[in-house]
Amino acid sequence: MRASVGLIGVGAFGEFMLPYLLPHCRIGAYDPVRDLEPLSERWAVVPESLEEVAAKDIVILAMPVQRMADVCRQISPYLKPGAVVLDVCSVKEEPITAMLENLPDHVDIVGTHPLFGPQTGANGITGLRIALCNVRGDRLDCVEAFLSKELRLKTIITTAEEHDRQLAYVQGLTHLMSKIVVEMDMPVLDHTTETFDIMMKMVESVRYDSEELFRAIENRNRFVGETREKFFDAARTIEERLARPGPKTDSD
Amino acid sequence: MRASVGLIGVGAFGEFMLPYLLPHCRIGAYDPVRDLEPLSERWAVVPESLEEVAAKDIVILAMPVQRMADVCRQISPYLKPGAVVLDVCSVKEEPITAMLENLPDHVDIVGTHPLFGPQTGANGITGLRIALCNVRGDRLDCVEAFLSKELRLKTIITTAEEHDRQLAYVQGLTHLMSKIVVEMDMPVLDHTTETFDIMMKMVESVRYDSEELFRAIENRNRFVGETREKFFDAARTIEERLARPGPKTDSD
Repeated sequence: MRASVGLIGVGAFGEFMLPYLLPHCRIGAYDPVRDLEPLSERWAVVPESLEEVAAKDIVILAMPVQRMADVCRQISPYLKPGAVVLDVCSVKEEPITAMLENLPDHVDIVGTHPLFGPQTGANGITGLRIALCNVRGDRLDCVEAFLSKELRLKTIITTAEEHDRQLAYVQGLTHLMSKIVVEMDMPVLDHTTETFDIMMKMVESVRYDSEELFRAIENRNRFVGETREKFFDAARTIEERLARPGPKTDSD
Repeated sequence: MRASVGLIGVGAFGEFMLPYLLPHCRIGAYDPVRDLEPLSERWAVVPESLEEVAAKDIVILAMPVQRMADVCRQISPYLKPGAVVLDVCSVKEEPITAMLENLPDHVDIVGTHPLFGPQTGANGITGLRIALCNVRGDRLDCVEAFLSKELRLKTIITTAEEHDRQLAYVQGLTHLMSKIVVEMDMPVLDHTTETFDIMMKMVESVRYDSEELFRAIENRNRFVGETREKFFDAARTIEERLARPGPKTDSD
């Protein structure tokens, strides 16, 4: 019999995962605000109550990091002994702390961060990366085996601290720059270079991300403040360099 | 008989053009600092004096915009009546003014900006874009026909002002952001997303550009100051937005 999965939170990422997970398991889904009936007409996913989805073999928490501690407390009474709980947050220290502090000892916990989303995974997820942090119990190996063998993802086993240190650059910087470009509200341009086209590809890959995801990336990672400071320091250094006279071939 | 071309300035871009131009013309080249003998062993290009290269049917000025006015004055006595002079600068108003003011009336002038370079054209230039501004005379059509039919570039006929307005974003912004990232001197990262990989592709496409090119793009375009102001204003707006409490699902 296929494993039963409870999906809590069916936003852009939760929905994106469905076609990849459904061939491998039965999924019951719960979302506190979204009506899941239309979704269940399209996919073989069963809308259920929070109590029901929390009682599955595997429980995936796919909500903003900002909601994690509350939801962990809500589902705790319903979790089965021996179940494994996973999150998919873009930061790892905060949700892992929330899970450790609020989930009962009789469940195993694995933190995950799929390093892609609906835009960057639009053409399939084979070969894309996912970061994994073991939190409690010994289920990391089977989670890792499923992700690499069945979904053909490239798994990166890491710690919450190392993940957040790296993602402070990897997402902190790219999402900041992309949101700045969006905020600039540029005119339509057709005299474009390859480099500009690449920049716009970066911008488009995050343009439709939720404000909550952006806030999680920028505000819920204790290392990202330093990245943003470095960014603005570097910007000032470049501005100062441009204001100084150029090399000697520069005629003024 | 194939047209004779004089190439003045054999930097990264001048050298990059050689294999594309050599099948169509004989090229004499001059550079004020670079020894061209090694280059002439690799390509069928003849190192010549400034007087000699200036006396060709077609003269290509491939030097930094900062040098344009001086070089125009230097070559003026040697230019053939009916010759056509082209530049390849990344901005257009300043070099076009320099050519108009300093080149004799008996030569035609076309301003060009190939919207690619050695990095972004590394896999060939077919389909890449080039901006063209007619400056003096009626040779734009034959330049345009050569570039689109023989080199298979996508030509964009424009004015110096419209070009510089657009490139203030297209290059002003991408080169600024890329130089900021380079200046940040990030640690080696392996927990990377597709979006980060795209950003690094942008950064790598300009990382090895000369400081002079960067200064031309940022300092020799009268519209770029406004772009940089908009960029920093947008950055401040984003910073302020992040500092305010989030939407109501945000638990703090």
